[in-house]
Amino acid sequence: MGAPELKLNADEVFAYLEEVFPAVRGRFSVLELEPMRALLRRETGPADIRPGGTVSGPAMFETADCGFYVVLMAMIGREALTVTTNATINFLNKPEPAALICEARILKLGKLLATGDATIWSEGGTRPVAHATLTYAIPPAR
Amino acid sequence: MGAPELKLNADEVFAYLEEVFPAVRGRFSVLELEPMRALLRRETGPADIRPGGTVSGPAMFETADCGFYVVLMAMIGREALTVTTNATINFLNKPEPAALICEARILKLGKLLATGDATIWSEGGTRPVAHATLTYAIPPAR
Amino acid sequence: MGAPELKLNADEVFAYLEEVFPAVRGRFSVLELEPMRALLRRETGPADIRPGGTVSGPAMFETADCGFYVVLMAMIGREALTVTTNATINFLNKPEPAALICEARILKLGKLLATGDATIWSEGGTRPVAHATLTYAIPPAR
Amino acid sequence: MGAPELKLNADEVFAYLEEVFPAVRGRFSVLELEPMRALLRRETGPADIRPGGTVSGPAMFETADCGFYVVLMAMIGREALTVTTNATINFLNKPEPAALICEARILKLGKLLATGDATIWSEGGTRPVAHATLTYAIPPAR
Repeated sequence: MGAPELKLNADEVFAYLEEVFPAVRGRFSVLELEPMRALLRRETGPADIRPGGTVSGPAMFETADCGFYVVLMAMIGREALTVTTNATINFLNKPEPAALICEARILKLGKLLATGDATIWSEGGTRPVAHATLTYAIPPAR
Repeated sequence: MGAPELKLNADEVFAYLEEVFPAVRGRFSVLELEPMRALLRRETGPADIRPGGTVSGPAMFETADCGFYVVLMAMIGREALTVTTNATINFLNKPEPAALICEARILKLGKLLATGDATIWSEGGTRPVAHATLTYAIPPAR
Repeated sequence: MGAPELKLNADEVFAYLEEVFPAVRGRFSVLELEPMRALLRRETGPADIRPGGTVSGPAMFETADCGFYVVLMAMIGREALTVTTNATINFLNKPEPAALICEARILKLGKLLATGDATIWSEGGTRPVAHATLTYAIPPAR
Repeated sequence: MGAPELKLNADEVFAYLEEVFPAVRGRFSVLELEPMRALLRRETGPADIRPGGTVSGPAMFETADCGFYVVLMAMIGREALTVTTNATINFLNKPEPAALICEARILKLGKLLATGDATIWSEGGTRPVAHATLTYAIPPAR
């Protein structure tokens, strides 16, 4: 068995993300993409900011979810029926009201399930603001 | 030790939610509220719907997070610095493109941590679409 | 679609548990079993007790895992290759150095994945000591 | 603020672990220890093996829990009242009936809560068999 390879490049996976996640359109960019790992940037806007000037939990959840989706789609190709089955997120440090940087890794790429994690920082910050583990179910018919 | 009692009623907790979660303004309503338990309704809009006519994961996450926040604020009073530290969500069945109904329960109300769960249904449906467990940290100075 | 029914009764599922989980032999008993729900009792012994007289986290994890396995086997029949893929456990209150009572429920019984939760009390206590959510993968060939 | 430093060395933390976790006595060894990170080895015995020759889920849970406890105690010193509040574990690949290697990291070391993760391999294997995230509550009186 050789090392796993990318089926989609960064431009292809970005185009696909914009298509199937219209809610995130224009807000994500793919900074780095390699087999089993992606680094993304997510803009934050007024709807993401909570009183006190911090980024909301749902915005961080969405960032982790999309980040893992990007690296998974890059590995398995366009599979619109791939869905999140489980996610755990720990909120670690209060984020700045800035863009979020997300590193997503696949820890297990199975035939039916893929599991990995996502670590999130405020852009320019060094301490992680959130860490998530995620599992996606992959449609069996592929 | 007597049974725990509500510190805020449904109107008060709703007013507080609209104030501190501007992103959800106009979308949540409190259907039932009793000690340690709340039932809520969340409208879904175009930004919450994914291709295929289902509600997005982040929208369900936000619903669970807000639902638990409502019952927690009702029990401990206005504590703006109370924050989610941990959440796990399982996506169970594909939701309809309809409003979401969320039942949130507190399982442990400690001095520093509160933990509970939230079960979510599509309005009119009988099978749960998601289940979450959540922990909030309560500021020690209160 | 009719209501889901039990494929194994309490005696059958207990015999199966003793066979495939030798580590728990003689320590579990099934108190109640109905479709999608089981109530169990787990003896605790010296190896489960931590200094201070409380039950260890791994013993509670094992109780939740076995409890959910019991109700799942009761619903789908003997499937030795069914394995836990994901579990989240929240430790809520310090358990007494007593037996544990566990209520396990299936929230979603799919073809490939089953998800549910388990709530654990010290025998004789009223406050939950732990709550877990669990997902099992069911072998596709059945 | 300087970089976080170890308060206990590997021998000290090992002695403490043997004292407060008698259930694991003789089964763990600390391979590497540095600020915010530890690498451990856990022997597996007959009680840990399930039919089919794989290591049980509770044994992997215990390994993750102890691994994180080791690095946390090394950072904060002997704090017997420090307890796990939350753990999520994903079982990724079937382990061999061999010893387990566990790498534990602290992602956030707060005053009241510490959160991190643990990755587990079968000794000699390259694919992770489990990944866990854990949160411990630290007693406020220290």
